Amino acid sequence: MPRIHFHLQLAELKDKLLAMAALSQQAVESAVDAYLLRDAGICQYVRENETAINSAHREVDEMAYDLLAKEQPMAIDLRFILAVIKINGDLERIGDQAMSIAVRTLELMKSSRAELPVDIAGMKDFAGRMIRAALQALLEGDAHVAESVLEMDDEIDRMNRVAKNDLTVVIQERPTCAEEALQAILVARGLERIADHATNIATDVIFWIRGADVRHQLSLAID
Amino acid sequence: MPRIHFHLQLAELKDKLLAMAALSQQAVESAVDAYLLRDAGICQYVRENETAINSAHREVDEMAYDLLAKEQPMAIDLRFILAVIKINGDLERIGDQAMSIAVRTLELMKSSRAELPVDIAGMKDFAGRMIRAALQALLEGDAHVAESVLEMDDEIDRMNRVAKNDLTVVIQERPTCAEEALQAILVARGLERIADHATNIATDVIFWIRGADVRHQLSLAID
Repeated sequence: MPRIHFHLQLAELKDKLLAMAALSQQAVESAVDAYLLRDAGICQYVRENETAINSAHREVDEMAYDLLAKEQPMAIDLRFILAVIKINGDLERIGDQAMSIAVRTLELMKSSRAELPVDIAGMKDFAGRMIRAALQALLEGDAHVAESVLEMDDEIDRMNRVAKNDLTVVIQERPTCAEEALQAILVARGLERIADHATNIATDVIFWIRGADVRHQLSLAID
Repeated sequence: MPRIHFHLQLAELKDKLLAMAALSQQAVESAVDAYLLRDAGICQYVRENETAINSAHREVDEMAYDLLAKEQPMAIDLRFILAVIKINGDLERIGDQAMSIAVRTLELMKSSRAELPVDIAGMKDFAGRMIRAALQALLEGDAHVAESVLEMDDEIDRMNRVAKNDLTVVIQERPTCAEEALQAILVARGLERIADHATNIATDVIFWIRGADVRHQLSLAID
């Protein structure tokens, strides 16, 4: 009977984590929309959303700690709770990156807008796919889906490199656009970091399911 | 008797974490030296050091998991082990940031060198002080020292903002130095992130000692 209660609590913990994840995903979507549309209202929304993220983050952490302290879980349940704590941390950092993009957008409001050779919307979509796949892997306990996220990481790195190179040329050739191109480089880098957090989440899902630490042996894990 | 053995294991876990911390600190020192001296040999050293960091990171995590699984620690011991897992993650990310600085330095080798209005050495020293204070707080279990790290975070943010503003002016006024100024902005930002990880470590030390979550209520914690 107590074990049934414990597994209900684990299910509740997972639900709370998924609610936290929804807030983080929403933050990324909104922050990039705010950037692309130069919309101060959406920036304000991202700021309010961050308060909700911080509450959700604390709530998940506290529930995970309570379960560890009171239930003394073994083996796969222990690994699941530890994975939740780490994933929760990554989701919070995804929210932080979204916040940075919103702050950058507010700075850009002051200057006029230039066409830049960078596909921020495309990078957002790709990073969003990585987050969604990582969460699907968590939801379904599917290590193969988690591995697919690890494989996607190279592509976002490539997109970020291309963005940086093309925008550096803009900075050199059109100094009046330098500030804006620099901000675009930092937004692209933020999206690459968000994708890194998705990769961390996928790695934690694999650790939960298989009990193996794949963080420093990604190529082995993908084989 | 088993409890004595358990506390010896906790002490060993702390030692392993401090060894991990030494590797991360060394990585930051070396990466910034490599950047300031444009020294490819030191970059190579940072790369080799990263392999050691990854091994140490895995070792600490595995020992922490084993202790959680086998000893089912309560209250303050549980919080300590959870803090170790989180601090270990931050130390690994400090190592990642050092690696990025080394990679940036190798890219810069191709171009000639310009004088830039930025105090990277000063930022490195300040971030280094924050890491040392956070580790001292961990070593001595001193929440007041940990709080001093939280207070230092504003200063490194300020240094990073000044660096970004001054270097953006360089990018606009001296397009031939744009690439180098951009890399300097990213190195300054890397040091600011390293300092953020020091702040995270300090927060985890406070959580361990006081059992309070100060992450989203820093101002309260400092009062």
